[in-house]
Amino acid sequence: MSIRIGILGYGNLGRGVECALRQNSDMELKAVFTRRDPEGVSILTETAKVCPVSELLNWKEDLDVLILCGGSATDLPEQTPEYAKHFNVVDSFDTHARISEHFAKVDEAAREGGKTAIISVGWDPGMFSLNRMYANAILPEGKDYTFWGRGVSQGHSDAVRRIPGVKDAKQYTIPIEEALRAVRAGENPELSTRQKHTRECFVVLEEGGDAAKVEETIKTMPNYFADYDTTVHFISEEEMRREHSRIPHGGFVLRSGVTGWEKENSHLIEYSLKLDSNPEFTSSVIAAYARAAYRLFREGNIGCKTVFDIAPAYLSAKTGEELRASML
Amino acid sequence: MSIRIGILGYGNLGRGVECALRQNSDMELKAVFTRRDPEGVSILTETAKVCPVSELLNWKEDLDVLILCGGSATDLPEQTPEYAKHFNVVDSFDTHARISEHFAKVDEAAREGGKTAIISVGWDPGMFSLNRMYANAILPEGKDYTFWGRGVSQGHSDAVRRIPGVKDAKQYTIPIEEALRAVRAGENPELSTRQKHTRECFVVLEEGGDAAKVEETIKTMPNYFADYDTTVHFISEEEMRREHSRIPHGGFVLRSGVTGWEKENSHLIEYSLKLDSNPEFTSSVIAAYARAAYRLFREGNIGCKTVFDIAPAYLSAKTGEELRASML
Repeated sequence: MSIRIGILGYGNLGRGVECALRQNSDMELKAVFTRRDPEGVSILTETAKVCPVSELLNWKEDLDVLILCGGSATDLPEQTPEYAKHFNVVDSFDTHARISEHFAKVDEAAREGGKTAIISVGWDPGMFSLNRMYANAILPEGKDYTFWGRGVSQGHSDAVRRIPGVKDAKQYTIPIEEALRAVRAGENPELSTRQKHTRECFVVLEEGGDAAKVEETIKTMPNYFADYDTTVHFISEEEMRREHSRIPHGGFVLRSGVTGWEKENSHLIEYSLKLDSNPEFTSSVIAAYARAAYRLFREGNIGCKTVFDIAPAYLSAKTGEELRASML
Repeated sequence: MSIRIGILGYGNLGRGVECALRQNSDMELKAVFTRRDPEGVSILTETAKVCPVSELLNWKEDLDVLILCGGSATDLPEQTPEYAKHFNVVDSFDTHARISEHFAKVDEAAREGGKTAIISVGWDPGMFSLNRMYANAILPEGKDYTFWGRGVSQGHSDAVRRIPGVKDAKQYTIPIEEALRAVRAGENPELSTRQKHTRECFVVLEEGGDAAKVEETIKTMPNYFADYDTTVHFISEEEMRREHSRIPHGGFVLRSGVTGWEKENSHLIEYSLKLDSNPEFTSSVIAAYARAAYRLFREGNIGCKTVFDIAPAYLSAKTGEELRASML
């Protein structure tokens, strides 16, 4: 019998999870839950239902794992603790600074309900975190670097869109090649924010929008752009649609470290991702951890977990024997 | 109290483990066990003893984990099952084709003794295996590639050394840039053995050795060289000592896969290592898994494990809370 999955929230991530489940024959999407009018939500999976979120608790016996596809700002801090009482859940909570707090709330709820919850699943946090952790455990003396991009930052794109005179905008984060080169060469550079990434904005102006003023506002925006070298391009709506409709992303996690009695040998561990679709890749990671959540729950391993707490074999549809024979 | 470690076998790997333990303050080397005359074995750690292997079983109460640093051909197939009855053990058994058999024997022994054993720890098998497994779980539809090098292959160096007329030899395995480029570009190439790696040999001849004949013998050697483009350089003993005394290695694990309802998006996951010292890096991975073996044993989780079966957090000296706060 396949693992019965529910999805809460049907944006880019929810749709990505739906696609990922189709690639995993041991899992089956049973229903998508939405705050919108279900009549207006059309999903891809013919065998699954679309239901109002108000009916979710009626599905307790019919779902093995509920995947929470809301945003980290306001949705997940409420939803994950709430639903972890009733379902095994997986979320992609990605506000790094608030993970400890989120973990504590979800852990309490999951334990109260006797359920398994996995939070902060995706690629960063997620696969990047795992690689930072493994690399630090292997090379205790060393230096970590994370670079993001080339890819679209949703938060930065939104910040540009809020500027008066801007009709649409897309922001790309770009790692600086020279910085990556220096890290790979084992130079262990100290890198400022400006030395690690540049930012590139593509902006469609409202009619009568003041290009010079918009550009100035972007480049001096605190936190978002002021500490970076930023390039702004003004383009047409048609060019925006044609050239910038995808959501690519990626990045690099590196650790440079030393071994030997006199620390005479250097090593470099590098993990990188090049993704055509950020939400679909994130969803694919989530699908694998949904399998893990189900298995951990069946073993009675309840409470809140992160990627650090889960043995890799739980993610795979293959048996331990198959894994050892084919991948070890 | 620190984790008390014993090392069996004091070659490159044993010495590497000794160095790695010095970088992990929660672990302590108590003794090195050797088949040689202990008088002739001088180790680096002043507080540790050198003992004959015949005394090993007297140390049952004094070691938390025994690290087996013998070779995969003849040592480990005997030693790991033998000592897993009496100690928590970690080995680096790397004969891929015989791992299932080794696992079964070690599992039986460890369960009989109520101990925890972790086998095939290192970078391949080990970190490369982990990355293959994670990437396959995330992207179920895709293609895997592993490249090794640039680095010294011990087995191939030994094969050249056995040729009559050869005094010393070192063989480097080199990944072919064009093949790597095609994989990274998402071209999903079908690559023959010859298209993935070249081999480069540095050879010191015996006095009167026949260079032409040695070169011919190398290049036509079945399994080792016949399927590759191989370059042979004849050098002096002095140049061998000066330029080829280190044991660097490394490589690349890549998975290229697709997502989306119509499989319209492509993704590339790449993990790579660039190592000054193959045995020291392997040893550093082993040290982290020795910590895991100790913790699993303390939790009553006995039997044989591989890297697939062990949650990443077990490898780190940090607590779960510290890991979530600093690396997630």
